[in-house]
Amino acid sequence: MSENGTHGGRDTTALDLRSGATLDPPTSPRLPVHATAAIDRGAALPPPPAPEPETPVLRTVETHLDEILAAVPQPEPIELAVLDAQGLLCAEEVVSARALPAFDQAALDGYAARAEDVAAATPDAPVELAVVGETVAGAAGPTALAPGLAQKVSAGAMLPAGADVVVPAVWTDRGVVRVQVHGGPEAGGYVRRAGDDVSPGTVAVRLGTPIGPAQISLLAAVGRDRVQVRPRPRVAVLSAGTELVDITAQPTPGQVVDVNTYALAAAARDAGAAAYRWGILPTERRRLTEVLESQLLRSDLVLIAGTFATDGDMVQEVLAELGPMRFRQVTMHPGPVQGFGRLGRDEVPVICVPGEPVAALVSFEVFVRPAIRSMLGKRQLFRRTVQAISAERLVSPLGYRQYLHGQVMRHPDGGYVVEPLGDGDEAMLARMARANCLIVVDEDVTEVAEGGLVTVMPLLLGG
Amino acid sequence: MSENGTHGGRDTTALDLRSGATLDPPTSPRLPVHATAAIDRGAALPPPPAPEPETPVLRTVETHLDEILAAVPQPEPIELAVLDAQGLLCAEEVVSARALPAFDQAALDGYAARAEDVAAATPDAPVELAVVGETVAGAAGPTALAPGLAQKVSAGAMLPAGADVVVPAVWTDRGVVRVQVHGGPEAGGYVRRAGDDVSPGTVAVRLGTPIGPAQISLLAAVGRDRVQVRPRPRVAVLSAGTELVDITAQPTPGQVVDVNTYALAAAARDAGAAAYRWGILPTERRRLTEVLESQLLRSDLVLIAGTFATDGDMVQEVLAELGPMRFRQVTMHPGPVQGFGRLGRDEVPVICVPGEPVAALVSFEVFVRPAIRSMLGKRQLFRRTVQAISAERLVSPLGYRQYLHGQVMRHPDGGYVVEPLGDGDEAMLARMARANCLIVVDEDVTEVAEGGLVTVMPLLLGG
Repeated sequence: MSENGTHGGRDTTALDLRSGATLDPPTSPRLPVHATAAIDRGAALPPPPAPEPETPVLRTVETHLDEILAAVPQPEPIELAVLDAQGLLCAEEVVSARALPAFDQAALDGYAARAEDVAAATPDAPVELAVVGETVAGAAGPTALAPGLAQKVSAGAMLPAGADVVVPAVWTDRGVVRVQVHGGPEAGGYVRRAGDDVSPGTVAVRLGTPIGPAQISLLAAVGRDRVQVRPRPRVAVLSAGTELVDITAQPTPGQVVDVNTYALAAAARDAGAAAYRWGILPTERRRLTEVLESQLLRSDLVLIAGTFATDGDMVQEVLAELGPMRFRQVTMHPGPVQGFGRLGRDEVPVICVPGEPVAALVSFEVFVRPAIRSMLGKRQLFRRTVQAISAERLVSPLGYRQYLHGQVMRHPDGGYVVEPLGDGDEAMLARMARANCLIVVDEDVTEVAEGGLVTVMPLLLGG
Repeated sequence: MSENGTHGGRDTTALDLRSGATLDPPTSPRLPVHATAAIDRGAALPPPPAPEPETPVLRTVETHLDEILAAVPQPEPIELAVLDAQGLLCAEEVVSARALPAFDQAALDGYAARAEDVAAATPDAPVELAVVGETVAGAAGPTALAPGLAQKVSAGAMLPAGADVVVPAVWTDRGVVRVQVHGGPEAGGYVRRAGDDVSPGTVAVRLGTPIGPAQISLLAAVGRDRVQVRPRPRVAVLSAGTELVDITAQPTPGQVVDVNTYALAAAARDAGAAAYRWGILPTERRRLTEVLESQLLRSDLVLIAGTFATDGDMVQEVLAELGPMRFRQVTMHPGPVQGFGRLGRDEVPVICVPGEPVAALVSFEVFVRPAIRSMLGKRQLFRRTVQAISAERLVSPLGYRQYLHGQVMRHPDGGYVVEPLGDGDEAMLARMARANCLIVVDEDVTEVAEGGLVTVMPLLLGG
């Protein structure tokens, strides 16, 4: 990547956006300002491309995303126990062959009777019926009721043939041998009819429906304890970098804790994947190849975070041996180095994102989350965006799509207002952790005035 | 329960709301219409309370909910691995004792130098520096750089003492012994300074913050692989009913499949609980007591679905032996029989909801979900509601809060429009499974005109 002359400087969102100073040309040596250099923090840096004959390979966010979305497969449906199917999309058309309830039953405790026998009953002129036994819920076998008789029933009990109402116990004298009825329900009163909950031929859950508690209720009602679903894609998460040590180690001078496998595994799980945090890639070449080959065999998607800008980077070389892996400068900030390829015998998609932790999670939002949702079969791949009033002036480099962390809140007059978290005094990860949205400033916008409208992507968890 | 004379009829949302006929008084025997009778399906049923001296024990939704929320405890914080903490609330104030990065480092591949040595460099008048070695990312031990010299560095490598810029490799001739520099960054250019990501004393995650990918990133950065969180409450889910058989069994006449333990376990998990689906309670008394005692020992909350209106119901009797368990008529539809108590040695909260599957899930939304969220320590216990235009006329019984399933969608002119799923031709569970919201009609409202505003609670999963 280092050959194409577009180093975007620090892969962070840590720009001080309020001063606007970052876009000023350098003071002394007046050099042509390259677009990517303009997004650096301290000052616009003059990239002197004199000894660099190559033209930079730049691509837009959309182009890179389109390539990824066109290439990620949808894993084959699998059959899961209904409770394990929660949150997934149904991959079959489930039709009920039965009625639920399968029989007319009492909706409450009382006396099964014929409506015409009790229609005239009032508290002043009760109707008296002979009680012929009792049926409780769960009792097997239908019974029958002749005119002028009543049968004591509990809620859920099968209605005897001939009966078409249940007189609530509280409307009677609760008699055992004979019962005085003080009011008569209309025909069908306090009866749960066969098929009321589910009628035969009901499509319980349609192909493509997200399975939640209501769908699980319906699946159980039609007797399904297993169901075909779009499975969670298995995503392996790895970090590349000779400076990295695991979270449990005490970093020595020059070493940095591996943050990204934890953060990206959490993000992948939040997006709906079955995330597997492998950890830091080995630095020994043969072992590195083994690990990558092994993860390609076990995963539907491999996600690697690292600083892929080094000359002769071993991870890039080994990835290239496993298939057509391309690293590109994407016109976004943070970024810009993003990689994608389909590697190994099964052409498993591999997405590489920058190693800087803020850039890693922003890249996940932009490229990986939609890919995981596509693999899950979801129709809505992208987070909903809203227009919000910017509480501060924003500046943004021409030709680059800028993603800024912010805090969006409802405006008292309706609508939304967003405040960028761009204060230079607070450390970057802490700012990201305080954010509840990404502000998206398009490629052709270089300035948003205070009070101007910007596009905001709320980062709701689990959404 | 059957003593207090307020049988609400069928515990369903299956009212035909469009005709309004359900609220008409019965045609022949003109009896005083009891509020609860008015919510029945077929016709308003005349409850003749002549032989019932007890005054009905009615309570509002708010009173019942307040009792539950005041009684559910917040489980003690526990320590979890950071990835297991995802989605939970942080139960400690995590402060970073270290800076991240711990040292100034190169942001990209290039040459570490002193800013003043390269300030005057241009493509036409390059500055030449002697290269004194190379430092790669992860290399231990600091080096130093004298004036007039440069050191080759890779991204992430520790900056030698004395250097304050990194000249990008692409701005140079990539020399090995001597390097020609074609432009000079300002002081600090392309350097990631110690503490840029996390500065010492940074509050990484505050007490009470929901832990998502960004918080996990920050926790990992400060070297935390475990964190104190509010744990997921352990919720045992059981069904009561002699007519019930498990989903895997073929129901014989009179039997009904247990739907509720599946649906409620899914709903509890969706609300954030660690749900344990126990299944159908035994009908043998000693075994029933054993199961309930055992679940009280193992759970933070016990949830039981059943038709708790039967005289001398064995489950109610056994629950009463375990502690003060109260069943009440709550002025809501569907409902109305709701139970709550704190049972066993540890006074574990036990919530009983109706056994009819639609009423069970509505009762879960109204009473159980807020209780689980309270146990998780969440500040926002209730789902957000919106006002929506009703696409149809609605009628509702006076004095009862009615919850209706509906489909809410955005209105082209802004705002929302909601359509109740009240068609009598479709089975009830299928209607519930098609709903994306609950329409809430307050106690004092008996009619909502077509085009009138109603309160709508969108049922987003995972929200």
